[in-house]
Amino acid sequence: MKVVEGNIASPLGFSADGLHAGFKKKKLDFGWIVSEVPASVAGVYTTNKVIAAPLLVTKASVQKEGKMQAIVVNSGVANSCTGQKGLEDAKEMQALTATKLGIAPDLVGIASTGVIGDFLPMAVLKKGLSKLVVNGNSHDFAKAILTTDTKEKTIAVTDYFGKDEVTMAGVAKGSGMIHPNMATMLAFITCDANISSETLQLALSKNVETTFNQITIDGDTSTNDMVLVMANGCTKNKEILPETPAFDQFCQMLSFVMTDLAKKIAQDGEGATKLIEVKAEGVANELDARMIAKTIVGSSLVKTAIFGEDPNWGRIIAAVGYAGADISVDQIDISLGDIPVMVASSPVDFDEEDMADVMQADTIRISVNLHSGSSSAKAWGCDLSYDYVKINALYRT
Amino acid sequence: MKVVEGNIASPLGFSADGLHAGFKKKKLDFGWIVSEVPASVAGVYTTNKVIAAPLLVTKASVQKEGKMQAIVVNSGVANSCTGQKGLEDAKEMQALTATKLGIAPDLVGIASTGVIGDFLPMAVLKKGLSKLVVNGNSHDFAKAILTTDTKEKTIAVTDYFGKDEVTMAGVAKGSGMIHPNMATMLAFITCDANISSETLQLALSKNVETTFNQITIDGDTSTNDMVLVMANGCTKNKEILPETPAFDQFCQMLSFVMTDLAKKIAQDGEGATKLIEVKAEGVANELDARMIAKTIVGSSLVKTAIFGEDPNWGRIIAAVGYAGADISVDQIDISLGDIPVMVASSPVDFDEEDMADVMQADTIRISVNLHSGSSSAKAWGCDLSYDYVKINALYRT
Repeated sequence: MKVVEGNIASPLGFSADGLHAGFKKKKLDFGWIVSEVPASVAGVYTTNKVIAAPLLVTKASVQKEGKMQAIVVNSGVANSCTGQKGLEDAKEMQALTATKLGIAPDLVGIASTGVIGDFLPMAVLKKGLSKLVVNGNSHDFAKAILTTDTKEKTIAVTDYFGKDEVTMAGVAKGSGMIHPNMATMLAFITCDANISSETLQLALSKNVETTFNQITIDGDTSTNDMVLVMANGCTKNKEILPETPAFDQFCQMLSFVMTDLAKKIAQDGEGATKLIEVKAEGVANELDARMIAKTIVGSSLVKTAIFGEDPNWGRIIAAVGYAGADISVDQIDISLGDIPVMVASSPVDFDEEDMADVMQADTIRISVNLHSGSSSAKAWGCDLSYDYVKINALYRT
Repeated sequence: MKVVEGNIASPLGFSADGLHAGFKKKKLDFGWIVSEVPASVAGVYTTNKVIAAPLLVTKASVQKEGKMQAIVVNSGVANSCTGQKGLEDAKEMQALTATKLGIAPDLVGIASTGVIGDFLPMAVLKKGLSKLVVNGNSHDFAKAILTTDTKEKTIAVTDYFGKDEVTMAGVAKGSGMIHPNMATMLAFITCDANISSETLQLALSKNVETTFNQITIDGDTSTNDMVLVMANGCTKNKEILPETPAFDQFCQMLSFVMTDLAKKIAQDGEGATKLIEVKAEGVANELDARMIAKTIVGSSLVKTAIFGEDPNWGRIIAAVGYAGADISVDQIDISLGDIPVMVASSPVDFDEEDMADVMQADTIRISVNLHSGSSSAKAWGCDLSYDYVKINALYRT
């Protein structure tokens, strides 16, 4: 597998576009991804009980049609908590896009991200749609879906399946309201491999728990989160079937793309100055390992300590203790970077200057070993800074 | 029941003292509460798997002896995650106090609060203990237990049980690492009523879920949290027995004191500028109601919006949705203060000036009605400000 320069339109048969329609004041806020042919599709959706209208519409179409040919996305307005009118607006967004492309509405996925509770400005949407083109500026799609993000988040990889080179690309947005249990952000992945929707869903579901579901910015699970994967088969490789070496290879590729996007989201968390990567090892089972890693990376006290470049490991051990896992707490080792700060649950001295080097880095690695099993898991997050407060105190105004 | 001027030593037969021993640089950091006679005792302890040494020692003594005559507390050093030595230090803290008072060690409760992972400076403790007196400056006890708190938290009430006037007083500390599931802070309650330890424990356990367990500052459950209640019987009232009107009256008194202290802790949350009170109504059961209220008040996005005086109710409905309760989301009403912002799950317009008045107040009341049952619950918290980040980024240094 090789990381390549590219964007969401790099896989064969895909194109994309992005532009300013007027959902936001100046920034790009509208875009689409289009496949030449209907593609296999798989999706995961927010676990929030309050589900935004575009997710309801997209999920229903995926279930009904089992194929997708285009995804249209606006940023700035989330079309969430907008009642019956919001649902009708979402359906119209889907229908108008389908009409423009001359395809069935159920082949169009829709997504919205931004402020909750505002209605979609349909005139803006129509104007934007009139300007979107197939084979447009594919690089601008990644910009068009951003909200409080400071960076575009894209990745493209290629790998050979036999003699056939398969390309997979991913794009994501998400900066606040990022937390557990599915897709707490928008991510779209395109691929030119030949794989059925069922097999694609298997691969997506298998990998989402250890990638996107292991990041947290602020513990808030949004109403609009969704990951959609499209695979259009344009490579014409031999179909990838479950329980084959090719499926494992495909899962590795997908996992790499999803982990990369997940880390990019964590790194660009609202107000973030540092990426935090937590590894929990020596845990009795993987579920507990994931829970412990994610609880540490989600602790406000750990996050503020790291913002302050303070090796306050007491907050890490406290988070281990309240993670909810049924654990023994007598043999815990904790390291910051490569420096042990706690061994067998007792504090150990460390060199303050070496520690300062660790804490001043852009990425802070926390390792916890419980010595009570063979499972491990990682989680990613970011520090909690003044700017997180600033961004979220003043978002609406 | 009447609120009266007073402090933790107001009930008959209690005294208290507080002073600077040297656990902290300048502020008061050491104190005790002493009863003339052994008192009935009840306690609740942190649910964190990592339990600080003083809690282990106190809990064991409460279980063994069933009575308590003194509580000694230091702030500045938590004696948590300090291994075998920490446990020995805690036992010595208990034994030294018992010797000084001429009572059995198991009659002494101990508590520590402050930085995790540092050993108790035993010379400082001994020096402090040599200066503590029975019938000391009882008002200073409330100061001596504070850490990042900005205010003392005390309450005293009296009520007649037949002809006998019973006095109950409470004192608490807690500003960060405040979260669910027991006693995420230190609180001590004294009372001169005649009630057995078993009945007292019944009353405490009954009330802790709806009071102290319904506050959250930052979602972090500490390793040192504890509530201890002592009742020494000095009023010589008729013994309060379970399932009697007197027991209900006693529970009301205890609930009032615990709610008052809980709100004072929430109001003085680290960096807080506003108290947030959330009421969840019309919920299928009380557990869900508590969970919903507490999830809203714990949401970083709700907390930052309130710091910014922004009526961003979308974040409130999102929190309702991810609270984990099995709810219907079609008929939800939300009000800020008395102003409806969402009715039957759809946004409603409101007067911006009226709303500005609501948002600028010191206390922000959020009401959510799910219209799907008759249970309700409250929760308390505070906004998330720049100062929360500042306090916690720089705490150790």
